Order: sequence, then C-alpha cells, then structure tokens
Amino acid sequence: MAKQANIDNGIEREIGRIHGNAGVTTEPLEQKLNRLAEVAVRVGLNLARGQELIITAPLDTLQLTRCITECAYKAGASLVTTLFTDEQATLSRFQYAAEESFDTAAQWLQDGLATGFRTGAARLAIAGADPALLAGQDPAKVSRANIAASKAGRAALELITRHEINWTIVPSATPAWARLVFPDDREEVALARLWDAIFSATRVDMDNPIAVWEAHATELQRRVELLNERRFSALLFRRPGTDLRVGLADDHTWLGGATIAKNGIRCIPNLPTEEVFTMPHKDRVDGVAASTKPLSYQGTLIKNIRVQFENGRITRVSADEGETVLQKMIGTDDGACRLGEVALVPHSSPIAHSNILFWNTLFDENAASHIALGQAYSSCIRNGDALNPAELAAKGANESLIHVDWMIGGGDMDVDGIAPAGDIVPLMRAGEWVSR
Amino acid sequence: MAKQANIDNGIEREIGRIHGNAGVTTEPLEQKLNRLAEVAVRVGLNLARGQELIITAPLDTLQLTRCITECAYKAGASLVTTLFTDEQATLSRFQYAAEESFDTAAQWLQDGLATGFRTGAARLAIAGADPALLAGQDPAKVSRANIAASKAGRAALELITRHEINWTIVPSATPAWARLVFPDDREEVALARLWDAIFSATRVDMDNPIAVWEAHATELQRRVELLNERRFSALLFRRPGTDLRVGLADDHTWLGGATIAKNGIRCIPNLPTEEVFTMPHKDRVDGVAASTKPLSYQGTLIKNIRVQFENGRITRVSADEGETVLQKMIGTDDGACRLGEVALVPHSSPIAHSNILFWNTLFDENAASHIALGQAYSSCIRNGDALNPAELAAKGANESLIHVDWMIGGGDMDVDGIAPAGDIVPLMRAGEWVSR
Repeated sequence: MAKQANIDNGIEREIGRIHGNAGVTTEPLEQKLNRLAEVAVRVGLNLARGQELIITAPLDTLQLTRCITECAYKAGASLVTTLFTDEQATLSRFQYAAEESFDTAAQWLQDGLATGFRTGAARLAIAGADPALLAGQDPAKVSRANIAASKAGRAALELITRHEINWTIVPSATPAWARLVFPDDREEVALARLWDAIFSATRVDMDNPIAVWEAHATELQRRVELLNERRFSALLFRRPGTDLRVGLADDHTWLGGATIAKNGIRCIPNLPTEEVFTMPHKDRVDGVAASTKPLSYQGTLIKNIRVQFENGRITRVSADEGETVLQKMIGTDDGACRLGEVALVPHSSPIAHSNILFWNTLFDENAASHIALGQAYSSCIRNGDALNPAELAAKGANESLIHVDWMIGGGDMDVDGIAPAGDIVPLMRAGEWVSR
Repeated sequence: MAKQANIDNGIEREIGRIHGNAGVTTEPLEQKLNRLAEVAVRVGLNLARGQELIITAPLDTLQLTRCITECAYKAGASLVTTLFTDEQATLSRFQYAAEESFDTAAQWLQDGLATGFRTGAARLAIAGADPALLAGQDPAKVSRANIAASKAGRAALELITRHEINWTIVPSATPAWARLVFPDDREEVALARLWDAIFSATRVDMDNPIAVWEAHATELQRRVELLNERRFSALLFRRPGTDLRVGLADDHTWLGGATIAKNGIRCIPNLPTEEVFTMPHKDRVDGVAASTKPLSYQGTLIKNIRVQFENGRITRVSADEGETVLQKMIGTDDGACRLGEVALVPHSSPIAHSNILFWNTLFDENAASHIALGQAYSSCIRNGDALNPAELAAKGANESLIHVDWMIGGGDMDVDGIAPAGDIVPLMRAGEWVSR
C-alpha cells in the first residue's frame, strides 16, 4: 500500500504497450480531470462537510490540483491548502548545496502537517513526481536527504499509517513521468497516453465511476474476509528466482480497498487499488526472492533485485543496476532489511493487464504481488493501533524509517497459505486466485 | 514598512508613464533575475551559511523563485522550502466554498512557519500577487477570511515585526500585476516594462548593485540618526486635504534601510526601500488626512480615502471606491482605527520619480510619505522588544490584527517636526527634505 506519493517504483521500459486508440480521447481532458477529481474527493477521501483539506502536489500537477481544489470546495471543504513541491528546486539543492547540509529537513513543516492532521484535516497526495529525478545524483547525498526527510516526517506519516484521518493518493500525468513510461512517443502523445492509462486504472472512463468504485471496494472486502477466516501462519511464494516463505505476524489481519479511519470516515487510501495486504512476521521470513519489476527508490532506479532472507533478515542482496542505493536503503536502520508488508494482487489486475510499466508504486504495486521492506502498519494487527511499540514488536511488527514496496509477482507466480494445522492451501496459481 | 508580501497598495491608473526604451532590455531577462536574486539573498537577507530559508511566493513568480533558490544554495542555505500560493485556488474558494467556512485559516501551517522562524530559518517573501484579485468578491467574506488569516498568522508575523530573524521582501513581475500597472500594453510588453521598473527600483540595473545597496543603506542610516537626535514630540503634515498632527510615541526611535535582527544578522527587510519610519502615539493623532494613491487592501481597491482623527481614533471616514471594505478594515478591532506607523519618503525617491503607479505597497510606500493603520512595531521604541504589551501601550504603541500602509505624501507636502521645547522645525517642503 502506498503511503506517500513520492515513494515511487518502476519496471522495465516497454515490456508492452497499449494498442489501439492510445492518446485518442473522445471526452475533453478537462472533463475527465473533473471526473477524476470527483472520485478522489468523494470516494478516495470521502471528504466531510466542513473538513479542512491538505494537498501535497508536484508543481507539474497543477491542472489536476486545481480541479480537486474546486471539487473539494463544492463538497464543503472549509479550507484547501496545497503544499507544492518544485522538482527544479530539489535538483538545485543537489547541484549547489553544501555537502554538510544534506541531513537537514523541514522539521517545522512536517510538524505543521502533523498538527493539521491532528486538528482534523484530511490529506490528499497527488502522485506524479519524476521517478528518475535523482538518478544522476550522488547516492550518499540522496540517502542522507531521504533519511532526514523520513525522520522529520515520521509523526505526520504515523497519523497516516495509523489511519487517524481519511486520506488518499491519486495520480496525475506529468511530462517527466510520461517520458519515462512512453519513451518512444512525442511528449504530448506520451502525456495523453499516460492520462488515458490513469483514467482507465482509476475507472473514471466508465459510466458512474463512483458506483463502480463502491462495487470494487466491496469485492476487495470479500477477499479480505476470506483470508482473515483462514488465519494462515505463513505464505509460500514460488516462481523462477523466488522461493520464499513469509511467516505472518501473530494476530495479523488482512486489509484492502476501503478503510474506516479513526475519525469515522470511510476512505479509499490508494486510487487505483487492487491489492489485499497484511503484516509479515519480522523474524520469520526465509528463502530467496527476485524482483519482477525495477524499483524507483526516490529518484534512483534499481533493477533485478535478488535477496536472501534468513530468520527475517536480508543476508545477501544484489541488483544489476542501483545496487549501491539499494545497499544504502537496506542499511538505513535495523528494520530496513526486514519486511513490513506482504500483498497479493492477481495477474489479471486491470493494471497488469494494461501491460504498461508505470515506474510508480501506486500503479505497479497494483499490477503484481509484492513485499515491502521497512515499517509495518499497526493496522495490520487486530487492535494493533492500541498496542505500544514493544507489544507490536512481540507480535512480529517491524519498525523502520523506510517503507519500500517491490514487486515479486507475475503470471508465473504460485502462492500457498500454511493453515494453522500445517496443511498447505493453494491460493494463487500462475498469478491468479485459485478460488473466487 | 511592508511586512507581508500580500498587503498591497495602489495608485490611480496611468498618471504617468516610463518614456523611452521601456520593455527594451539589453541583458537577457534570466541574467537580470539572477542579479536580483543575488541582491535579495546577499543584501536583503544576508543569508548565513548553514541557515534554512523559507520562501513564500505566488505561483506566477516561479522563475524568480527558482533563481533565488539556486542563489540561496550557492550562499550556503542548508535547505530552501517554498510555500507557493495559487491565486486560482483562492478564487475557487470565494466561488464555491460554503458561507460558514470563511472564518477558517491554516493555523497548522502558520504555527509551522513560526516554529521554522524560531528554529533559525530566514524568511523571504516574493511580492507579485494580483492586487485586484478579490475585487469582485463579497467584501464580508473577504474581510472574514482576512481576519482569520491575520489571527492564524499572528505568531509568525510577530517574529518578523520584532526582527527575531533576518527577512526580506522582494518583488517579481507577474502577468496580472503588469496588466494593472500597464493596462494599455500587450501582456508581454506590460510584463517587460514592469520587470524593467523592478530592476531599476531595486538598483540591479546598476554596476555592482551590492555596493550600491550598501551606500544607500548608509545614507538612510544617516537620516535616521539625524531624526533620532531631534526627539520630536510630533510631526505636522500639510497639503490640500491633509492637515494632520501625528504625536510620536514616548521613547520612539526612527528606523530605515538595514536592520540588525536579534539573530545578529544585518538584513534589509524591503527591496526596494526609500523610507525612514517610526511609531506614532496611538492616542495623539488629530486632524484630517487624504490619500494620494489608492489602496489595494488584500484584493480590493480603495480610492480617495478621507479620514478625520480625534485623540488618535478615526472618527470619520469615507472613500470614493471600496468604502465598505475600508469600513470593515477599520472595524477589524479596536486598534484598526489608530495609527501604528508614520514614514517619511522624499518626493524625489527614484520610485516616485519613475512616475509608475505600482498598486503595491512595497513600491508605492517608497514613493510617498505614509501612515499605517493598525499594529505598531515594538522595534520603533527604544528597547521596545524587551517591553510587555502593557508597557508598550503606555508608551503609545498601538495593537491590532491589521497593519495597512496608505500614502498621504506627494510633491505638495510640507512636514514639520515639533521639538521637545515646542519649536517648529521644518523637515520637508514641497515633498523634499529641507536639510541634507
């Protein structure tokens, strides 16, 4: 599950392509943006009348940001405040800032955000950052800046991960992102194709997308309930390069689709979302896993990850590209080399089906089963939000400054569940659910 | 003295015009923007190595914001964070938000800003907002939104007005502002002319603007010292429509040009700046005053203001345009109908000399002598920052949520000072200083 719009992830360029009328839209863009904005505000956030809204958005997503702002006011927002980020400013920093400054973060702003959430604001993040922005920068500086930002943002992020408030992440096409996804197209064609893919994945190209989203959330809820009834002790993942046993946390609970936040508002935190997910036990992961899509970790691309786990810890790691950044990421803290999430996504997911490689977690994690290194979500333990860190750790919850999803699933993945009595229950074969 | 980039002020359209090569620039714009950025960072802010910087900027000022960001990193900024405001979002609010929501402000963000200043960040505001943005909106809503914003921003603004940190305001041309200043020109010509006027007023069109600014600040300092030696008890202003006696606060001190902030850094808070200013006594203002330029109060234009003061309070007020907004402004709180600042600017100021009407306090207050309704600056009392509110009030310091400058000076203004012994000392004749 994506928690921050800027934790992106990627995939090999151009495995496939949309065929047919890509880039050809019958409805004007503005109208579709308004439909996306309405799904974001009314279904994703389910914004309450009189509620404040805080938006975080890259500058290049201005058009969608404005549609969402208007829609939020129409839905009764008391005030909409957008914190824009300018990627050129980030590049300026890496180009000109003093070596010793890279451990600095805007603590004052993150504290302000946390206060905003605590005093009732909802949060909408617009995902559209350039996944390769920092690809050419010094990995040591990138890592230090990321760690500083994670530390500064911890309190605000915890309010999100504990679902204290209603929140959602919604995508916007941007030129830089479109260029990466459709490198062979002219910019305006690439941009139009990415928008079409976004409208398709977020179901706003269908009639009455709000009703469609309600039905989809109900279906995910049904899958979650089936899995919760089983009380599996572990999951087994098998495909070429992967033979992984993921023990599940004690009292783990599966989640997916909609969430009822502590403020009583039912929201859908990721648009799109196709996954069901739960908490691995931090000490009970063993075997090997290989990534099926490259990972874009805060601007650097990491390709063909191979890891070995022993008693929950990564004991060996390699990658064909970006290995230094991967090593630094895993070395962030003690929990960065253990799992915090495991998620199942059928290979027939509309996003996998599109055959587009999005280089963005919000999409790619919904195209394939995946695991995440780092912080676990206490909401994946029954009554977990009422437990203190020691109690959570005793159940197997991992703790870290990072939370990075990466994809291990595909059309050749088999997944089994180990039932409490030890019998093996087939869950997925060739990437698809065995039972409806 | 302007404290906030969005408190703008105006003047009648097109009294005069730049003649000659307006809009024709020999140096590329980018290069001039970099010179302006350098003056802003090195002279205006005097940013310390390792200091964090918080920029506030309208979206339309992105180009200058990026130059300043780059320049700040080169000068050793540990981190530059820009809070952009989108005027379209503000208009959306006035168009679509619920009636009951207009008392809401982003308290969490203002608290965050105050924390940022308290923990050592410098502050740079870019002025370029559309002075007439809210001209068509319901004055009651505008007033409620302004009051809410003032209350929420009080703590952060006090850190500014008390000069706890180094800060500056620097202008950027924007299409909406340029349209208002040069209504008869095509947009790109108007924009180029406004940029030229800005480069001229901020002296970045001169050789070595940094040395030029040092000399200018020294000259303002000399004028401040002369006035401080005099210990005037009151000032008398006379021109057609104005016959005003402004009693000065006990232990008042004149300021102008550079300021040494409490963090030890010498900054020039307004670029451009031509004024010397001090604190009126809140109970000792009597007579009548007429504005010589229209006032743009947070988006509404107020023209031909006429007021009468008795014992410091406004007892009669009228305006040819925007009178409702003016009445509401004055009714904000008890201190909103009393003076918080009085400032002297010679009519030969380069900005008055340009004969351009900027509709923006940062310029127009530096083209004419002026008074400000509302909050006084404790730094205008000797050791005033060490005094508590009751002690400040006893010396005559006014307190209010607002601080609104408006222009009463011009080429026909005479100003006298009343010396402690009662003798009258001519200060200005026909808008110019009597003595060097």
